[in-house]
Amino acid sequence: MSYQPTPDDGFSFGLWTVGWTGRDPFGDATRAAIDPADTVRRLADLGAYGVSFHDDDLIPFGSSDTERESHIKRFRQALDATGMKVPAATTNLFTHPVFKDGGFTNNDREIRRFALRKVIRNIDLAVELGATTYVAWGGREGAESGAAKDVRVALDRMKEAFDLLGDYVTEQGYDLRFAIEPKPNEPRGDILLPTVGHALAFIEKLERPELFGVNPEVGHEQMAGLNFPHGIAQALWAEKLYHIDLNGQHGIKYDQDLRFGAGDVRAAFWLVDLLETAGYSGPKVFDFKPPRTEDYDGVWESAAGCMRNYLILKERAASFRADPDVQEALRDSRLDQLAQPTLGEGETLAGLLADRTAFETFDVDSAAARGMAFERLDQLAMDHLLGARG
Amino acid sequence: MSYQPTPDDGFSFGLWTVGWTGRDPFGDATRAAIDPADTVRRLADLGAYGVSFHDDDLIPFGSSDTERESHIKRFRQALDATGMKVPAATTNLFTHPVFKDGGFTNNDREIRRFALRKVIRNIDLAVELGATTYVAWGGREGAESGAAKDVRVALDRMKEAFDLLGDYVTEQGYDLRFAIEPKPNEPRGDILLPTVGHALAFIEKLERPELFGVNPEVGHEQMAGLNFPHGIAQALWAEKLYHIDLNGQHGIKYDQDLRFGAGDVRAAFWLVDLLETAGYSGPKVFDFKPPRTEDYDGVWESAAGCMRNYLILKERAASFRADPDVQEALRDSRLDQLAQPTLGEGETLAGLLADRTAFETFDVDSAAARGMAFERLDQLAMDHLLGARG
Amino acid sequence: MSYQPTPDDGFSFGLWTVGWTGRDPFGDATRAAIDPADTVRRLADLGAYGVSFHDDDLIPFGSSDTERESHIKRFRQALDATGMKVPAATTNLFTHPVFKDGGFTNNDREIRRFALRKVIRNIDLAVELGATTYVAWGGREGAESGAAKDVRVALDRMKEAFDLLGDYVTEQGYDLRFAIEPKPNEPRGDILLPTVGHALAFIEKLERPELFGVNPEVGHEQMAGLNFPHGIAQALWAEKLYHIDLNGQHGIKYDQDLRFGAGDVRAAFWLVDLLETAGYSGPKVFDFKPPRTEDYDGVWESAAGCMRNYLILKERAASFRADPDVQEALRDSRLDQLAQPTLGEGETLAGLLADRTAFETFDVDSAAARGMAFERLDQLAMDHLLGARG
Amino acid sequence: MSYQPTPDDGFSFGLWTVGWTGRDPFGDATRAAIDPADTVRRLADLGAYGVSFHDDDLIPFGSSDTERESHIKRFRQALDATGMKVPAATTNLFTHPVFKDGGFTNNDREIRRFALRKVIRNIDLAVELGATTYVAWGGREGAESGAAKDVRVALDRMKEAFDLLGDYVTEQGYDLRFAIEPKPNEPRGDILLPTVGHALAFIEKLERPELFGVNPEVGHEQMAGLNFPHGIAQALWAEKLYHIDLNGQHGIKYDQDLRFGAGDVRAAFWLVDLLETAGYSGPKVFDFKPPRTEDYDGVWESAAGCMRNYLILKERAASFRADPDVQEALRDSRLDQLAQPTLGEGETLAGLLADRTAFETFDVDSAAARGMAFERLDQLAMDHLLGARG
Repeated sequence: MSYQPTPDDGFSFGLWTVGWTGRDPFGDATRAAIDPADTVRRLADLGAYGVSFHDDDLIPFGSSDTERESHIKRFRQALDATGMKVPAATTNLFTHPVFKDGGFTNNDREIRRFALRKVIRNIDLAVELGATTYVAWGGREGAESGAAKDVRVALDRMKEAFDLLGDYVTEQGYDLRFAIEPKPNEPRGDILLPTVGHALAFIEKLERPELFGVNPEVGHEQMAGLNFPHGIAQALWAEKLYHIDLNGQHGIKYDQDLRFGAGDVRAAFWLVDLLETAGYSGPKVFDFKPPRTEDYDGVWESAAGCMRNYLILKERAASFRADPDVQEALRDSRLDQLAQPTLGEGETLAGLLADRTAFETFDVDSAAARGMAFERLDQLAMDHLLGARG
Repeated sequence: MSYQPTPDDGFSFGLWTVGWTGRDPFGDATRAAIDPADTVRRLADLGAYGVSFHDDDLIPFGSSDTERESHIKRFRQALDATGMKVPAATTNLFTHPVFKDGGFTNNDREIRRFALRKVIRNIDLAVELGATTYVAWGGREGAESGAAKDVRVALDRMKEAFDLLGDYVTEQGYDLRFAIEPKPNEPRGDILLPTVGHALAFIEKLERPELFGVNPEVGHEQMAGLNFPHGIAQALWAEKLYHIDLNGQHGIKYDQDLRFGAGDVRAAFWLVDLLETAGYSGPKVFDFKPPRTEDYDGVWESAAGCMRNYLILKERAASFRADPDVQEALRDSRLDQLAQPTLGEGETLAGLLADRTAFETFDVDSAAARGMAFERLDQLAMDHLLGARG
Repeated sequence: MSYQPTPDDGFSFGLWTVGWTGRDPFGDATRAAIDPADTVRRLADLGAYGVSFHDDDLIPFGSSDTERESHIKRFRQALDATGMKVPAATTNLFTHPVFKDGGFTNNDREIRRFALRKVIRNIDLAVELGATTYVAWGGREGAESGAAKDVRVALDRMKEAFDLLGDYVTEQGYDLRFAIEPKPNEPRGDILLPTVGHALAFIEKLERPELFGVNPEVGHEQMAGLNFPHGIAQALWAEKLYHIDLNGQHGIKYDQDLRFGAGDVRAAFWLVDLLETAGYSGPKVFDFKPPRTEDYDGVWESAAGCMRNYLILKERAASFRADPDVQEALRDSRLDQLAQPTLGEGETLAGLLADRTAFETFDVDSAAARGMAFERLDQLAMDHLLGARG
Repeated sequence: MSYQPTPDDGFSFGLWTVGWTGRDPFGDATRAAIDPADTVRRLADLGAYGVSFHDDDLIPFGSSDTERESHIKRFRQALDATGMKVPAATTNLFTHPVFKDGGFTNNDREIRRFALRKVIRNIDLAVELGATTYVAWGGREGAESGAAKDVRVALDRMKEAFDLLGDYVTEQGYDLRFAIEPKPNEPRGDILLPTVGHALAFIEKLERPELFGVNPEVGHEQMAGLNFPHGIAQALWAEKLYHIDLNGQHGIKYDQDLRFGAGDVRAAFWLVDLLETAGYSGPKVFDFKPPRTEDYDGVWESAAGCMRNYLILKERAASFRADPDVQEALRDSRLDQLAQPTLGEGETLAGLLADRTAFETFDVDSAAARGMAFERLDQLAMDHLLGARG
């Protein structure tokens, strides 16, 4: 099998990823800025399907309207020339110092109003450029200390903001859904809606929940030590996986944004297995940072690696699922029984209560003695992941 | 102020806490078992309000019906003699080897049926003993390896189980609500519904969501590095804090179950501040393990410490909120503005869009320059926490 | 290549690994105990080289001298029958409640004396059975709270103990070295000598440092979020890698003891690459726990998986090192320059200070612009790890 | 007691701390730069003893010799005017892009030479300004991926560099010792010498170990989940605590650099207790970052808070140690026995082996039953910490 991506694979990149110049908390930029139009062309050459952007990636904060139009035009030309799409876009509510206490939940009411307007303005542009998903990462919606944010009140403000945005796209008749991106911390000590679960729960309290889903990012959940595929499974189960950010992370530490496949490759394998099995068809966006040790050759190799790794893992997951020994092990692990309802067909609660074999005469010790065959199953997975089967 | 608890403080303890004999993964029990009736009397002497139990704490697994009745009778006598209450109860679905792959999501269908029956049986007893909250900790609903559990299917099974339980208590006319207890891992590599957020989101998918809330445990959220008071705030915001488990944890590591106040005392301070401010009135249950280095003198000192620490922190939080300097700092941090809606009274989205001062003429740099005064506020909190004010 | 181990591969297992019956902090044993002699036979069949033991694995705590002899005899017969070796042994200073506050640093002096005697007794047996390495894991040398252990004084006691043991083996003329095993926490809140680094530093303060090295365990360092191969590299650099415990761990959480290759497979790859490149020839002991979901079929499959995974990774590391593209990438990453001393041959400090090209005229910006090619190199490693090259 | 610091308390601050302008990985500076001379005056007003600096804090990278002299002069005048001291200094080997792969272990040999020269140049200045400790934080000595750094070879280079520096200060006759600062990660995926233990072990391999000690930073060890006071205790035990960096951190996550006392206040309490009990007299340097939400009023309040918190905790630790109930609890916890050698006075190993009461007739069960009284002791500590005693 070839691991060369094509637009049919549906891979996108954020402009801010390959465009990251390498400034980190302890160091200055190591790479010169790159023109977004060049990024589009370069990624098209590598086989990508599309790009995604923050408003400020495309149009520097504070640009005049004329400058703005010129930036957009240049970008659009590159899209047209390459056939690259814009599946999704988002707003930068974190770089400018005005957002130091957040956007939608900033304690300063004027800044909340400014943030809303900044988002709405970019939604118009996103729709114009064809995006159907709008990502919302509340980069600085949080706090470092306990009294600085009344979280219940802040959630009221966040709900107010998302409800207004839901109204806006509805009134405009836009074909646009929102994907809320959770993160536990960094750059704030603690961030509101820290995990996929918290975001899913929050969405249920919105006025138009159908317009809102989640955008989980591999590294963000792993920064809380959570099993990423498990979180994705719950999002899929709730029919709320509207977007996904793919990258890599080596466990609980600062946000690394490694290329996809780096970090926890086993989690990446199960993730691809899940996305492919579930038929996920939303945006697949690589949201990584090529390490600042790299020059632009390294940047493009890193970007290419993201896509290559997805394709390798897709192949391995498919071979795992197709293997008759795996299918037997899955049965020995009773995954087939898990898929059966616990009550029998037509059985009621009363039926369960009346079934003496379920409790009174149930042979607990013999049931306890049955091995689950999970180690055999997992070793088969390891063999497929490493291409060591057969 | 005295830090001596009384039943009016509403503090309860799980039987399994002071009753833990000290068996851990690397060592045998260091204390002899204690009779639950003695526990009731001892805790009553210390000023507790009630006790909580797993079925197997009270009635050893596999007891005959006669033995069962005798255990219950003895326990009830101790309750009657002391005036201690049973605010909540729960089921042990994790100690017996039959539950090695979980209860409600065990791959083995027979074991799921057995688990449901075990829960229902203990619900009847819980109601009989006066409990109005039923805690559900899915101790082993999870996996160590990727293919061992199809999470989407497992969530179907978990929903099936909770829907059945909701039907059951409704049909019986019980005044009983469920509190689902999240935990990220241990004893399974990853546990389903790993955080407060995931549990809140799951509840929204149940048939009778009004019957289900969460039971957050301090240490469980902290095992994922999450800010515990933030999670509690979101649960309160969703009106889903039905129960709370109080203990201590020193960061991301194995489940420590330290006494309340040990571990992250700052988080404990903000938690008590939040519970008291929000007027939380559900069960406050200490779910800790007196370290196995202790004999029974140490056990009771540890239990007394849990309550004492809550009362100290309650006093400190009250003095923090009452301090005029704090109130001024809160205003300087613009907490008052956070409490104001972002739209003005009667203002519409159109109004916001038309307000040029919100965006076009907004003085971003001057807004950015305003300090948030969070360090002053937090130092005041530190001073109150440490009793170093004035 | 075949991934079937033979004794020449030098793989050993602790008796306590496949012999773990599955008791964990929340559950009872799920498997019946197995006779150590059967373990020896079973592991020999799987292709292992040897076994390792705690005194209490072989001879239950409190056995009479006659019973002890009988246990040893039975074990020795199995060794003789199979040709299995005992490369290393160790002492259980953690299971019995008497060790609840540790062994060598127990606050109770009598218990420290008992612990020393228990160790010495088992050293005699270890030597008798052919062991040349004695592992020391201070399972409970630590504390849950700040005043419970005066760490400086406790280190004095630990030094006293190891100095005595060094004297003992010297006086006896034993060909035996000690390998101290670090662990950050669990079962104690914090354990003394928490990492490979702390143990290496401690050893330098002993009277006979040449007799003491470290026994790093994969999961223990990963419980502190540390890079395991980096720690091994420092131990090798200090010529102190006397023993290694191989297993798997999924990041910072409770001690999982997964089979080798599970958990962080990328770290396992770099570890095998390092051990093989460095020519490590000490004991390679799998110290894992077959999950309690497994019956004995699963136990042996899990044990076989440990060895198989090592051999797969060994093959992949060798192919990585042999690949000309890798060798070119290593040069482009300037690993060859790293191997050159920073001073030139014969150059002195004065020479460096006089070299204007090193500082005054050094073209910093042009040096800064050179890409490191690390992403290309790491993608090549990923390809080799996954068998996706060529 | 007053919590107002004076120079006699010996508190210093890094210029880069209050001088941090708030640029983080996701945002631009929120504060204007401040002149180092103003920093000196402001800190003197607050009661500090001294300041510490990186070369580039004082003299922007790339300054001409004339500019350099002018910066130094201005700084020296502020020192002279205020009486502020410079107890320590250090080199910036991480901000400029040339150091993207580190300084002493950069794969690029020319950059290693440049780094050494940069350090030596600033050592001369440090000595001129009166510093007697030189801190070495290898900010970027590490890697993100496995093959990018051969750790054994990199340790050779690091040893080469420190040996040269040891030679240099010896040849110059400087009264200067080095303090190596460990950190587990950030800004590199993994950093060499990740913990206090690794640094202590490394020092033993240097040619002039007496010139080298450690500079532990609160947050750095806590980023690995380690007990900070335990690490300090081992450093003191090894007589290697040459410098300490005081700040706060909320567990395992990105490097927070909170003010001292924020984060884990309990660890801060035990730290101050240890430093004061041990009579530590080296530099006590606050190495924190006032949150970027703050304006300069907040910056100075944050700096004042660092010192105030130390003094509060010092008072509480002293009251803890002086309390007769604590002293009794310490005896009940057998801390007095821990301080006694395990062998009796004049006792030999042979004596221990011959003592039947130590093993053969030792009453294990009765020893096991003795409670350790740790919970009482820790609750007393909690009471003193919170000022809730009496």
